[in-house]
Amino acid sequence: MKLIPDRGFMLRYVVAFACLAVPVVGVQAQEAAPISNFTLDNGLEVVVIPDHRAPVVTHMLWYKIGSADEDPGKSGIAHFFEHLMFKGTTNHGPGEFSARIAEIGGRENAFTSYDYTAYFQQVAPSELEAMMEFESDRMRNLVLTDEVIGPERDVVIEERNSRIENSPQALHGEELNATLYQNHPYRIPVIGWMHEMEQLNRADAVDFYDRYYAPNNAVLVVAGDVDAETVREFAEETYGKVERGPDLPPRIRPQEPEQNTSRIVEMADERVGVPSFSKRWVVPSYTSADDGEAEALDLLAEILGGGMRSRIYQELVVRQGVAASAGAFYQGTSLDDTSFGVYGAPRGEATLEDVETAIDAEIAKIVEDGVSADELEKAKTRAMRSMIFARDDQSGMARMYGATLTTGGTVEDIQEWPDRLSAVTAEQVQAVAGRYLDQRRSVTGYLLPEEDDRS
Amino acid sequence: MKLIPDRGFMLRYVVAFACLAVPVVGVQAQEAAPISNFTLDNGLEVVVIPDHRAPVVTHMLWYKIGSADEDPGKSGIAHFFEHLMFKGTTNHGPGEFSARIAEIGGRENAFTSYDYTAYFQQVAPSELEAMMEFESDRMRNLVLTDEVIGPERDVVIEERNSRIENSPQALHGEELNATLYQNHPYRIPVIGWMHEMEQLNRADAVDFYDRYYAPNNAVLVVAGDVDAETVREFAEETYGKVERGPDLPPRIRPQEPEQNTSRIVEMADERVGVPSFSKRWVVPSYTSADDGEAEALDLLAEILGGGMRSRIYQELVVRQGVAASAGAFYQGTSLDDTSFGVYGAPRGEATLEDVETAIDAEIAKIVEDGVSADELEKAKTRAMRSMIFARDDQSGMARMYGATLTTGGTVEDIQEWPDRLSAVTAEQVQAVAGRYLDQRRSVTGYLLPEEDDRS
Repeated sequence: MKLIPDRGFMLRYVVAFACLAVPVVGVQAQEAAPISNFTLDNGLEVVVIPDHRAPVVTHMLWYKIGSADEDPGKSGIAHFFEHLMFKGTTNHGPGEFSARIAEIGGRENAFTSYDYTAYFQQVAPSELEAMMEFESDRMRNLVLTDEVIGPERDVVIEERNSRIENSPQALHGEELNATLYQNHPYRIPVIGWMHEMEQLNRADAVDFYDRYYAPNNAVLVVAGDVDAETVREFAEETYGKVERGPDLPPRIRPQEPEQNTSRIVEMADERVGVPSFSKRWVVPSYTSADDGEAEALDLLAEILGGGMRSRIYQELVVRQGVAASAGAFYQGTSLDDTSFGVYGAPRGEATLEDVETAIDAEIAKIVEDGVSADELEKAKTRAMRSMIFARDDQSGMARMYGATLTTGGTVEDIQEWPDRLSAVTAEQVQAVAGRYLDQRRSVTGYLLPEEDDRS
Repeated sequence: MKLIPDRGFMLRYVVAFACLAVPVVGVQAQEAAPISNFTLDNGLEVVVIPDHRAPVVTHMLWYKIGSADEDPGKSGIAHFFEHLMFKGTTNHGPGEFSARIAEIGGRENAFTSYDYTAYFQQVAPSELEAMMEFESDRMRNLVLTDEVIGPERDVVIEERNSRIENSPQALHGEELNATLYQNHPYRIPVIGWMHEMEQLNRADAVDFYDRYYAPNNAVLVVAGDVDAETVREFAEETYGKVERGPDLPPRIRPQEPEQNTSRIVEMADERVGVPSFSKRWVVPSYTSADDGEAEALDLLAEILGGGMRSRIYQELVVRQGVAASAGAFYQGTSLDDTSFGVYGAPRGEATLEDVETAIDAEIAKIVEDGVSADELEKAKTRAMRSMIFARDDQSGMARMYGATLTTGGTVEDIQEWPDRLSAVTAEQVQAVAGRYLDQRRSVTGYLLPEEDDRS
């Protein structure tokens, strides 16, 4: 509870997102009312996603503040603040909100990413207004004393110890990103650098709260067995009473310079059992891309390494047998330029170099010869199918809307996504592969058992 | 004129500094009055270094503002602003100051680094007060209109084009630093990233000027044929009339996290004739080091690769003949943790790998077996000698004081440096080599001709 997802999970989740961006109106038209999207007078944007299949409702409040918005030297404050939101307010004692959710058999969680911080509860519809009362209360009435701050800082430090410092995979991943991004704050871990986390204090927390926690910097997403008018009425009664905060400047972060070098990040650690290889590039996101490029990158990731039907999996794992696992990913849901990556771990006598050579060859084939009409169609179909499965997941649906709306996208972007995906041509997929997956601007990671040699 | 020194020069200069830190009072006691150091009421610190061997005076004004103090996304503003300082003020038209210097047969220059920006003129003593008038005038009275800003931005962009974009060595060096520093702004080039330089505007310049250009953020260094009382009198009459600026917060920049990976930065370019190898580490500076470590790092650089007597040169160039050039450097004069590096270029049939292997072996020898009492003594003597030669360079002396005082050091630090250097033991040199030159946290650079292979 109230922890950020670990990197691996986050990765899979975000990748899944790209394939989850469903045409909600089109597909659900027969069974549910259309999605509503409106804004309260104080600037809070509201999205209501009716889903009457079960008497349950997902209530998520998303803030347009993530780790990439932090001031230099204050890494970790966004995630630390997410923890502080579970402390008491002037109206409710510490733990009272969580106790209420437990009591009514609901569940809750929260997470922080580069671009957003979100809080959610899943409860019976009759409890929705109570959730809104609690959530809108902690938007402004948090009690931030040194007695609250100090012990919770110890908690996030311990969280970093257990999730990052104890994991060579996580440590290596951090330095891969710190190398991949030369200027953009995506190079800094969401949880923060340890030496900066240790310095976070009450003044930092109060400043952060006053700057970013306000209705005009948030998006409320409610999915489930409820209608839009009820949500609007409850929202006016609760969130609507919170005063608008100061206007925030546009979220302009330092962007990447032109990259001219290929880089390698190598780490050997006695805790590593099996070596692994990865390669990453900075590529456009759905928000920063020119028309069609993000959709093409999504399909490229799918064709190249999206599961067992993909080229990389078929060639390395099935045919050559050099890899125990291998694939590709694209983190498309992102405010600024994001990452595209490939990865693999050798099997048997094969070396990391064998894995890298085989993956490089698969990329080169697409750059040189493109993809076939047939595999492009199948990749589109797989993406559509994963969307159909996704319909069953109410909180996943809410999450997709929240993540999109807090990274520069709109409800329409989500609804038009299937059409835009369908329109991608084989030439576009080949073009983005050639344009972005250039070895001369890639970052390669080798994670090795201690004393091992990658050759 | 008014350009930052190119990276190569900067490097040699800063390295020279470490060996130039002379005991001015001790050595010059017989021939010159002692150095004076005082502060005006408005906060301007003044250092006077009498040198009566010739009728010439060096006037340098140093600001405690460098590229590492820039706001995120505003890279290049410190250097850009150095250019703008040569435009007109409300009292003197554009170019008037420079014309006056040329007319009287003087010379001038300016430079920007990570930690400071400095302006200097060398003129006859009779012109010193006039220089102070001009320099104190442009501290506050600059005319910053769009007509001034636009064309000068084109000039610095062109400067970046000619010095960096046209030089694979410079591009590669930029990305080495961007990889070496994962969090500290030393990862960003002093001249700025091109895409950010292009966005710098009048508001940025005015904000920068008002924040950093004030007597209480500057150090005046006057060396030459002049006495302290005269300098004080002139300074009171000119700089003394400039109002104190707002108090600035301490210069606390984001510091480096613990580094866990070894990294490689490779670049191939058709403009590269001969391949080259380099390796860098983040190490303490004179300001950030614990007692004695910076002096030990200085002597380590000298013993390992400081010229033709050094181990690396003797082994690689003279004995094995695998390198055409090779050496080591330590950039000790720095506000925050800085760089220690080794480098080499192969000769004849030798490869980069041969050079790297041989340099690594020299480092390993010192880590394992230490240095001899004899070579430590000789290294200390060489450092002292370079200091004796340095006495002849009036502007070099002024520069040493300015750089030290704007990176957290004091006049006493410079004067006590020879004693601190003498006190370094062989064990301390071995200890810093073992502690800091760890391959597992190094960044290695390979700069290659296009199509070449480093193996």
